[in-house]
Amino acid sequence: MPGAYLPTPADLRVQFALRFAALDLMATKKTTEGNFFEDFAAGQVFHHAIPRTVTDGDVALYIALTGDRRPLHCSSEFARSLGFERAPIHDMLTFHIVFGRAVPDVSLNSPANLGYADVRFLTPVFTGDTLRAQTKVLGRRETSRDDVGIVWVHTTGYNQREEPVLQFYRWAMVNKRDTNTKTDEDFAPELPAEVATGDFLIPEQLDLSSFDPVATGGDAFWEDYEAGERVEHPQGITIEDAEHQMATRLYQNTARVHFNQHLQKSSRLGTRIIYGGHIISVSHANSYDGLENAIRILGFNAGAHANPTIAGDTLYAWTDVLKRIDLGRDDAGALRLRLVGVKNIDPREEPIELKSKDPERDRESYNPNVVLDLDYTVLMPKRPA
Amino acid sequence: MPGAYLPTPADLRVQFALRFAALDLMATKKTTEGNFFEDFAAGQVFHHAIPRTVTDGDVALYIALTGDRRPLHCSSEFARSLGFERAPIHDMLTFHIVFGRAVPDVSLNSPANLGYADVRFLTPVFTGDTLRAQTKVLGRRETSRDDVGIVWVHTTGYNQREEPVLQFYRWAMVNKRDTNTKTDEDFAPELPAEVATGDFLIPEQLDLSSFDPVATGGDAFWEDYEAGERVEHPQGITIEDAEHQMATRLYQNTARVHFNQHLQKSSRLGTRIIYGGHIISVSHANSYDGLENAIRILGFNAGAHANPTIAGDTLYAWTDVLKRIDLGRDDAGALRLRLVGVKNIDPREEPIELKSKDPERDRESYNPNVVLDLDYTVLMPKRPA
Amino acid sequence: MPGAYLPTPADLRVQFALRFAALDLMATKKTTEGNFFEDFAAGQVFHHAIPRTVTDGDVALYIALTGDRRPLHCSSEFARSLGFERAPIHDMLTFHIVFGRAVPDVSLNSPANLGYADVRFLTPVFTGDTLRAQTKVLGRRETSRDDVGIVWVHTTGYNQREEPVLQFYRWAMVNKRDTNTKTDEDFAPELPAEVATGDFLIPEQLDLSSFDPVATGGDAFWEDYEAGERVEHPQGITIEDAEHQMATRLYQNTARVHFNQHLQKSSRLGTRIIYGGHIISVSHANSYDGLENAIRILGFNAGAHANPTIAGDTLYAWTDVLKRIDLGRDDAGALRLRLVGVKNIDPREEPIELKSKDPERDRESYNPNVVLDLDYTVLMPKRPA
Repeated sequence: MPGAYLPTPADLRVQFALRFAALDLMATKKTTEGNFFEDFAAGQVFHHAIPRTVTDGDVALYIALTGDRRPLHCSSEFARSLGFERAPIHDMLTFHIVFGRAVPDVSLNSPANLGYADVRFLTPVFTGDTLRAQTKVLGRRETSRDDVGIVWVHTTGYNQREEPVLQFYRWAMVNKRDTNTKTDEDFAPELPAEVATGDFLIPEQLDLSSFDPVATGGDAFWEDYEAGERVEHPQGITIEDAEHQMATRLYQNTARVHFNQHLQKSSRLGTRIIYGGHIISVSHANSYDGLENAIRILGFNAGAHANPTIAGDTLYAWTDVLKRIDLGRDDAGALRLRLVGVKNIDPREEPIELKSKDPERDRESYNPNVVLDLDYTVLMPKRPA
Repeated sequence: MPGAYLPTPADLRVQFALRFAALDLMATKKTTEGNFFEDFAAGQVFHHAIPRTVTDGDVALYIALTGDRRPLHCSSEFARSLGFERAPIHDMLTFHIVFGRAVPDVSLNSPANLGYADVRFLTPVFTGDTLRAQTKVLGRRETSRDDVGIVWVHTTGYNQREEPVLQFYRWAMVNKRDTNTKTDEDFAPELPAEVATGDFLIPEQLDLSSFDPVATGGDAFWEDYEAGERVEHPQGITIEDAEHQMATRLYQNTARVHFNQHLQKSSRLGTRIIYGGHIISVSHANSYDGLENAIRILGFNAGAHANPTIAGDTLYAWTDVLKRIDLGRDDAGALRLRLVGVKNIDPREEPIELKSKDPERDRESYNPNVVLDLDYTVLMPKRPA
Repeated sequence: MPGAYLPTPADLRVQFALRFAALDLMATKKTTEGNFFEDFAAGQVFHHAIPRTVTDGDVALYIALTGDRRPLHCSSEFARSLGFERAPIHDMLTFHIVFGRAVPDVSLNSPANLGYADVRFLTPVFTGDTLRAQTKVLGRRETSRDDVGIVWVHTTGYNQREEPVLQFYRWAMVNKRDTNTKTDEDFAPELPAEVATGDFLIPEQLDLSSFDPVATGGDAFWEDYEAGERVEHPQGITIEDAEHQMATRLYQNTARVHFNQHLQKSSRLGTRIIYGGHIISVSHANSYDGLENAIRILGFNAGAHANPTIAGDTLYAWTDVLKRIDLGRDDAGALRLRLVGVKNIDPREEPIELKSKDPERDRESYNPNVVLDLDYTVLMPKRPA
């Protein structure tokens, strides 16, 4: 089904022409406040602006800002040993660049991102590639609140050869322009509960049969992980305002809450909120120890930013192994994992429940220290014979 | 006239030889405090040290530190669609690197930069180019104060092929070494009030006839802007010490007031002052929304750093359209703009006068929240037929 | 003798095989707390994980984070004028990347690095090179404390052609896993008191006979420095948490004390400690003025991180000239220097003794403002005839 959102070059030409005609009519409007709930309609397609060429500068900043250590992305020698011509960029860097393209059209007025589904990492991205993105609106729904609704979209990122590099479903709370608007819309599309195993894209050139664990420092292969096992990652990282601002601007994500202290000082938190994607990146970097041999993110099945993070928070992470998936290859299999990011508590020292019963509301909610709950799948080499 | 400052290779050889001879005599002096008012003389030429090769790393940091989104500088595909072989670097990045070269010789002892004139962006700069700069002293003048004078200079930046990439006049307050010095100098050169239309350099390879507004996200073309119109930019950005320090060091600008808290804690502001050029860059980046199709900075006619900024300040911007200039081309025209940067006030929420009457001094002065008043000219595509 | 630690490719294959066998046995252990004092044994060799390709992004970040201005590393034109094909990276960037590789195996449980010896900068590193490192354990010794011992190691960094790029001895305090452990080990290897003059590696392609001092801005050549002379560097730089964290993560150095405020808040200092290598880099960058023509670091003879630094500290530096060393070349000689870094005091304004007598302990100790005492040797062009 998601294949439906990968348009052909002919489609693109038509869509560009239509959009250009639309521009013509809006020419006197110089700035926009972004789209509000009222502006979205199922079937609408946004061709996001600002194509972005990825460079070595982006890769170095990604390492400096997140602490990433995966050798596939920082060693061209290691990448070549696995069949690539040179090092592909980190899957999360691709994610952030594609996501950033979509913000001005989709989520400039979004107080919260509610979820992801069927996030798939497709053609690997290399420095020199230029990424663009487009988003199709799937549906929207009124909520119990007057001021916000929920919007469902499907976003695809492409490289300069129009090959899809990433696709994802996402739904977000979006402010209404006018609290009196009543659309009676109540359409929530049915989304895949997980990335289907047959949809995982394993790069053609990748060959893990001569995988060198000395390069990763990792002792454990696909066979060594068992469903139910927990890996507690030792690293903890404190995030500064300058750091998350630089990361978010690098991705040209323009959501105001991440940069504007003058605006945020009167918000509930009183300060800037860290971009949730940066929290995924830092938690994923923290998860290196114990998952050194995970070679690629294949997809996100589901994800929640459980609580906000702000500058000064220290992030820790653990990973629960959910499932071992055999891909029918000799060199590698997939692992379905649950990456949990927590703030200001070291879960190795002080055990913490992911969720607890909220006595007032009689339902489970995330522990206030939990900031990320990500159900995702990675490619992991099998133990060499 | 400014052509007079573009020396031939033969001139350069002579100047290098002279300078080398001068070095010989000063060999026992290992460090310098920089030049003071007494050290400047009209006609003097400084060949600034530290040639600088621009790289993808600089470009990525420029984006991360300023929030720049102009696709000409971040998409090689978009650059190629306009006739370039690949993406030229941001005009302001060229400015900062050239300006940074000049600081050790010109403004290490300058408490304030007073103005710019006839700032012209010339041959575009690409990653891999190596920039150097030189400055000719034009004149100096005593002031009513014993401790400072004013020095006028003309600086030119060159690439490795000795093609000029930038030139500008600048005048700055400069400390005296000795408050008893009385030079009786009173020469202020006459400077152009604006960049002459005939002096705008439009890169030969640039062809805007197939300009794609989907790539910029911009709805407005040259014809859509009217003199007198105000564009209020929605973005607001808070600047951290780590950010402006990294930017200023990237440009190898060594002015102490930007980096040295131990020195600055006893200053009037009590803290580090943000490099004025960083304020231009952030304000220019903020001005993207509403001016998406501005393709190049052609020149600065005049500019003032109206008030200092420090870490924690949030910058907003608006642009007043001053004039539409027809360049006699079918694909593009020029727009003369006034970019105003303000701090800690959102001008869309709270109207602010640029200047107000100072009752004590009976003259107009900038509102204390105004930090930048830049009169500049950009190249803007015409609406396709 | 140090040549003994440069293994042949055949050695490497054997060592890799042995390590791989070791991995096999540890496969069920997913994360490690790093090695403790008990885990080290003389003769042991660590092949450090995570090979790292150096890029233009690393070079730009190095400049932005340290304030480095040496034109050999930022100008490919200047590098070519000295015989290189393009600009080699800064010697300290090579140091940090090699050092960072070794941290997870060697110093994750090290509360203090005690010293360096015979640090030699070998084959120059260029962007595109991929660095890896290995460390041989030389010995260990119990101390008067129950909880820590001292470990001596020798680390070598290699490029992708297995050419050594850096080697150094280092000894560090290392925590015991169990305070009851008594090894009775008391072996401290004898280390060279200085890098032997014959061991300095001067890159073959380097030719300083047409050295252009206009490019460096430096007035002084090898002959102009006298033993006993002090050069006081004017620059002072305040370090922010975001800056040293980015630098240390760029080098993929995982020592927790630099990143984890949640952990550090209960430490003696109450905050994150800045990576000592960053202090060397910033002090070395501060030392540019007065030593502009130093073209390469040949080696460190000895070095001490005299006191810790934290965010908000302002660093100043001075250099004492220890010795002029003739290398038997016409174009250049070596200078042995002592680089002293101090915090929160400008030594040009307020003289400061390097060490003072501690009355209680009846021995000399570093002044609390001194943070770095580095005895090192640089290559310096001779004055052209």
